[in-house]
Amino acid sequence: MLTDMHIAIIGGDARQLEIIRKLSQMDAKLSLVGFDQLDDGFAGANKQFISTLDPAGVDAIILPVSGMNAKGEVETIFSGEPIMIDAKWLSGTKKTTTIYSGISTESIKALLNICKRPFVEVFNRDDVAIYNSVPTAEGTVMMVIQHTDTTIHSSEMVVLGFGRVGMTVARTFRQLGAKVKVAAQETELLARAFEQGLEPIALSDLRAHVESADVIINTIPAEVLKADVISKMPAHALIVDLASKPGGTDFRYAEKRGIKALLAPGLPGIVAPKTAGRILANVLSLLLAEQWEKMRGGTS
Amino acid sequence: MLTDMHIAIIGGDARQLEIIRKLSQMDAKLSLVGFDQLDDGFAGANKQFISTLDPAGVDAIILPVSGMNAKGEVETIFSGEPIMIDAKWLSGTKKTTTIYSGISTESIKALLNICKRPFVEVFNRDDVAIYNSVPTAEGTVMMVIQHTDTTIHSSEMVVLGFGRVGMTVARTFRQLGAKVKVAAQETELLARAFEQGLEPIALSDLRAHVESADVIINTIPAEVLKADVISKMPAHALIVDLASKPGGTDFRYAEKRGIKALLAPGLPGIVAPKTAGRILANVLSLLLAEQWEKMRGGTS
Amino acid sequence: MLTDMHIAIIGGDARQLEIIRKLSQMDAKLSLVGFDQLDDGFAGANKQFISTLDPAGVDAIILPVSGMNAKGEVETIFSGEPIMIDAKWLSGTKKTTTIYSGISTESIKALLNICKRPFVEVFNRDDVAIYNSVPTAEGTVMMVIQHTDTTIHSSEMVVLGFGRVGMTVARTFRQLGAKVKVAAQETELLARAFEQGLEPIALSDLRAHVESADVIINTIPAEVLKADVISKMPAHALIVDLASKPGGTDFRYAEKRGIKALLAPGLPGIVAPKTAGRILANVLSLLLAEQWEKMRGGTS
Amino acid sequence: MLTDMHIAIIGGDARQLEIIRKLSQMDAKLSLVGFDQLDDGFAGANKQFISTLDPAGVDAIILPVSGMNAKGEVETIFSGEPIMIDAKWLSGTKKTTTIYSGISTESIKALLNICKRPFVEVFNRDDVAIYNSVPTAEGTVMMVIQHTDTTIHSSEMVVLGFGRVGMTVARTFRQLGAKVKVAAQETELLARAFEQGLEPIALSDLRAHVESADVIINTIPAEVLKADVISKMPAHALIVDLASKPGGTDFRYAEKRGIKALLAPGLPGIVAPKTAGRILANVLSLLLAEQWEKMRGGTS
Ligand SMILES: NC(=O)c1ccc[n+]([C@@H]2O[C@H](COP(=O)([O-])OP(=O)(O)OC[C@H]3O[C@@H](n4cnc5c(N)ncnc54)[C@H](OP(=O)(O)O)[C@@H]3O)[C@@H](O)[C@H]2O)c1
Ligand SMILES: NC(=O)c1ccc[n+]([C@@H]2O[C@H](COP(=O)([O-])OP(=O)(O)OC[C@H]3O[C@@H](n4cnc5c(N)ncnc54)[C@H](OP(=O)(O)O)[C@@H]3O)[C@@H](O)[C@H]2O)c1
Ligand SMILES: NC(=O)c1ccc[n+]([C@@H]2O[C@H](COP(=O)([O-])OP(=O)(O)OC[C@H]3O[C@@H](n4cnc5c(N)ncnc54)[C@H](OP(=O)(O)O)[C@@H]3O)[C@@H](O)[C@H]2O)c1
Ligand SMILES: NC(=O)c1ccc[n+]([C@@H]2O[C@H](COP(=O)([O-])OP(=O)(O)OC[C@H]3O[C@@H](n4cnc5c(N)ncnc54)[C@H](OP(=O)(O)O)[C@@H]3O)[C@@H](O)[C@H]2O)c1
Repeated sequence: MLTDMHIAIIGGDARQLEIIRKLSQMDAKLSLVGFDQLDDGFAGANKQFISTLDPAGVDAIILPVSGMNAKGEVETIFSGEPIMIDAKWLSGTKKTTTIYSGISTESIKALLNICKRPFVEVFNRDDVAIYNSVPTAEGTVMMVIQHTDTTIHSSEMVVLGFGRVGMTVARTFRQLGAKVKVAAQETELLARAFEQGLEPIALSDLRAHVESADVIINTIPAEVLKADVISKMPAHALIVDLASKPGGTDFRYAEKRGIKALLAPGLPGIVAPKTAGRILANVLSLLLAEQWEKMRGGTS
Repeated sequence: MLTDMHIAIIGGDARQLEIIRKLSQMDAKLSLVGFDQLDDGFAGANKQFISTLDPAGVDAIILPVSGMNAKGEVETIFSGEPIMIDAKWLSGTKKTTTIYSGISTESIKALLNICKRPFVEVFNRDDVAIYNSVPTAEGTVMMVIQHTDTTIHSSEMVVLGFGRVGMTVARTFRQLGAKVKVAAQETELLARAFEQGLEPIALSDLRAHVESADVIINTIPAEVLKADVISKMPAHALIVDLASKPGGTDFRYAEKRGIKALLAPGLPGIVAPKTAGRILANVLSLLLAEQWEKMRGGTS
Repeated sequence: MLTDMHIAIIGGDARQLEIIRKLSQMDAKLSLVGFDQLDDGFAGANKQFISTLDPAGVDAIILPVSGMNAKGEVETIFSGEPIMIDAKWLSGTKKTTTIYSGISTESIKALLNICKRPFVEVFNRDDVAIYNSVPTAEGTVMMVIQHTDTTIHSSEMVVLGFGRVGMTVARTFRQLGAKVKVAAQETELLARAFEQGLEPIALSDLRAHVESADVIINTIPAEVLKADVISKMPAHALIVDLASKPGGTDFRYAEKRGIKALLAPGLPGIVAPKTAGRILANVLSLLLAEQWEKMRGGTS
Repeated sequence: MLTDMHIAIIGGDARQLEIIRKLSQMDAKLSLVGFDQLDDGFAGANKQFISTLDPAGVDAIILPVSGMNAKGEVETIFSGEPIMIDAKWLSGTKKTTTIYSGISTESIKALLNICKRPFVEVFNRDDVAIYNSVPTAEGTVMMVIQHTDTTIHSSEMVVLGFGRVGMTVARTFRQLGAKVKVAAQETELLARAFEQGLEPIALSDLRAHVESADVIINTIPAEVLKADVISKMPAHALIVDLASKPGGTDFRYAEKRGIKALLAPGLPGIVAPKTAGRILANVLSLLLAEQWEKMRGGTS
């Protein structure tokens, strides 16, 4: 339980609702900043503006998945205007006040440079990345069904990368009956792919393997689908690039060659916002409980 | 090979293209009726009108999946106007000329009553229904991803019916990580569901099991999702009804209760027209080869 | 519940213990014949000899899985001597007294010819055969692991038959990572095999496919693994024949060629007697409940 | 290819045969020490004694999986007497002569202390451990089938550890229809278990979860199945301990409580020696090719 812990939830999207619900249940004291257009009444949560919120009482700050943009604003879909957190306000918080953000951004780093506070980048955690790989894989399945005129069952696929997202994506398509090759560098990833009924291939052999591929899915955040690889693909091939912007595909060349190539960022928030919110809510509740135990242990 | 067999392909949609491709490969002599707007040139296929096609030379007639509509017209997407086949034209064919149609319709039956010819209802075959269950299941997966805000993984599902479509659909969702209950009547279907890692439930117990269901998929062509069952579902439940029109759901009641319910006919042609065409092409080529062997055996 | 129903359990093996346990729980009145060496005390069950049991009071008779042997004896592992049921004793039972046996045998048929009573062949039921296919498949897995020096994972297998046992066996080995071909005759079985990720082959093409097979498993009760097929197998191939005696393999030829071939009957009772007993207990309890309802409905 | 590379294979068991076969194929020059009772003739391989083998010409030395025992002997099943390699002989080799052994032992370390040579512990590699996890899992399946009287399908299992062996074992049993819980410490392992359809539990909650377990499989090389955990297990529970000797189970207590507990080391070599040999042969051939390329590069 988080009884008496004062948490400020600042900005966000549908995922924040699951976080608010969970932390309410755990009896935290919640201040919601940037939620003035939200109708739902949550017990133990009251709406505030950054100007009305006393920093000295806040134990933890939860920023949205996107953190803080280049202009230093925190985005919110529940209010007409973005929120500004400045160093002055932040320096009014306790030294132990911890900031949780989906990702780290330049503006957050700059702020924390001026005013040091414990900071947790939630999306960077392996467990969060693995939980999120599930809605990512389902979003990919949806896109492949939408953008091909054949079934996934019996189709030939190549998945690039066998990390947190790649392993889930590769197995998901195999479960649906596709023949899946996995391209990776490290020998232990290739061994694991083999064990899971996938066909491991060396990244360096990619050119040979895309020739008979119907669908190519990239999870490697580096330029791996270059022109020389794309030039080997059959005309009907579909590329779905999951790697964070700008992806790992030479999109210009793909278009020129008439190969359909889609950059598909942020799938969890699109196809399963409720699940994506619960993933964050579950992990945050564990992290906050740990922080709270430590803080109370420290004051006694 | 179908060398010298003269086959008239009359009307249709994208699926016909795969049939034409396959039968061309097998060296059949093809007359395409209702394909005047089709650009592709297929070797050994020439475009005709029903008026220019001499029935006496035709060995087999392939109608579209939908057969012939109530007005006695054969529909086509490759021509501005539908095609009429009348008893007079048909009686000009040989007694052994065989008609292949996706489904049987009242107007086909009426025509065959006047002029008896061997008739094959291709979609009625178990093998075709099972092959088609694969794109049907994938289409269902796409719809469930689109119409829920949670993942299929870990969700609770009930599939009604464990026939040709039901078995494929239930297993597909289970492979994606859902907890799947299967409602059926016959004890051997319940045993098979159990063996495949699904939870078998009696259709008569359905009301109790939908209470915790996130998604309910119906494959039974009978009114099984009645008001008293729907009234037990949670507000966020999604119904996808695959049974042929009008489906097995009390849609009026579902709407009244605010439960999202979708009737989803014809998924293979929508999500995987090429695969759907190949399924037909493969089965037709086997059936035509058998017919041709018999016909030639008979004439010698 | 089976309160007041008097059931005679005559002979059997470890599986009978699960039946006794289940029927006890359902409050039946049990007479155990041929269990004199059994120690366990079951509430509501008393041990009898056929000579001390009054047939007039018995509502149902449960014979072992093996029924009655050629000498007209019922076998039991819990007593030193087999049991004889004769027509005289049986004719003392009510006309509605129902006999349940695993299988039907000549001696049972002869007895029922003299003295007609309702008779149920439990192992013949599709649901029982499918439930039993699970321990059968696990027993086959055990044997294949024991008798090969390679893994099941990545090995090439051919399963003959895709009925109640064949479907379970084929999928089980595929789940373990084998590449599995399924040989069957009917087109809808081949379609279902394809859908489940197995490679369907025509039985008539078997000779070509065994050439690269590491393991061949037969479930067809007919001579399908003849000399001309076995002669094509590689020297290290293993044949496991599950079909009921005498199996479908030319064992003499296999031995001559040095191919290891094993006839493996009765696997459920060997590798999972408790599960096998529960399968029978569950089905019998449903059948007995139906019979009891009918009998009481009839007497009122 | 390994043309002109001189490799000494010293001692071993059935697995060495696969290594010899593979390296022969790659055209290496092989000296076999401790194989005097081996009948097979391998092209390019000649049998030697350590006394007849000139160390100066040897490029690589392959020891068995077990390395060298406490007495400094290399064990072999193909000769009546063990082999001794001493520092004097070894110091006659080139500085670049590389020693490959399954595991490292005290006696090997002592020898290398006196005479420094490149050393590779093959079993320690992640890829080898993952490839070996497949026969390990199959061996575990065999043992569980042999030592229970119920099916794996539908049984409740707990797998301890989710490393290279644990992940494979847990998924293998789930594929066979068991309900599998995975006990681990790290949050990302728990997330991966969840994604793969397994139920993740904290190691600290183990006591609560073994209460309903039919089978418990340990892969953690630390004492985790202590008396207080075993005391919670049902009487029919089976423990299979895969962790390297002495395992992670309090065997003394398990026996006292009547819980069947089996220590099962070395399964790959027992249930699939040929596969186990090929795994080593494949990895060794890659490592030797790399070494050979480097050596020749260096001399030029
Ligand atoms: N589209 C979406 O909705 C969505 C959702 C989640 C994540 N993502 C994105 O997906 C990408 C993958 O995420 P992840 O969590 O799976 O990351 P990850 O666990 O780090 O895996 C990345 C994989 O790429 C390989 N890799 C990285 N750099 C490489 C290089 N230069 N050359 C070759 N291989 C390289 C890694 O292999 P090594 O281990 O050998 O480096 C690993 O196999 C990220 O860009 C992430 O932002 C997108
Ligand atoms: N939406 C699409 O894209 C699409 C694609 C393909 C098929 N379909 C439609 O899906 C439906 C199912 O097709 P299918 O090929 O799976 O048919 P099927 O093999 O005949 O299976 C139908 C199932 O429904 C059960 N059933 C039938 N009537 C019943 C009743 N009155 N009460 C209870 N159970 C009943 C059957 O059980 P018993 O065996 O016990 O009768 C069986 O389990 C059909 O309407 C078909 O037209 C739709
Ligand atoms: N070893 C054990 O422990 C064990 C356990 C259980 C059962 N069994 C035995 O296993 C066998 C199979 O049982 P089951 O329940 O699977 O039977 P099933 O459901 O009747 O299946 C038999 C399969 O064999 C095919 N078949 C039958 N006769 C054939 C013939 N003459 N030529 C070609 N195919 C033929 C059937 O195809 P169609 O449908 O086209 O006829 C079907 O695919 C039986 O002999 C049974 O007694 C053994
Ligand atoms: N019986 C056989 O035939 C056979 C075959 C192969 C291997 N093995 C043996 O099986 C064992 C596992 O091998 P592996 O390759 O899977 O090793 P691994 O990849 O290192 O995995 C070991 C697992 O145990 C956990 N673990 C280790 N020490 C722990 C501790 N003190 N407390 C809690 N968790 C702990 C690890 O978690 P962390 O990552 O959090 O540490 C990891 O999940 C080894 O002893 C190996 O020798 C036996």
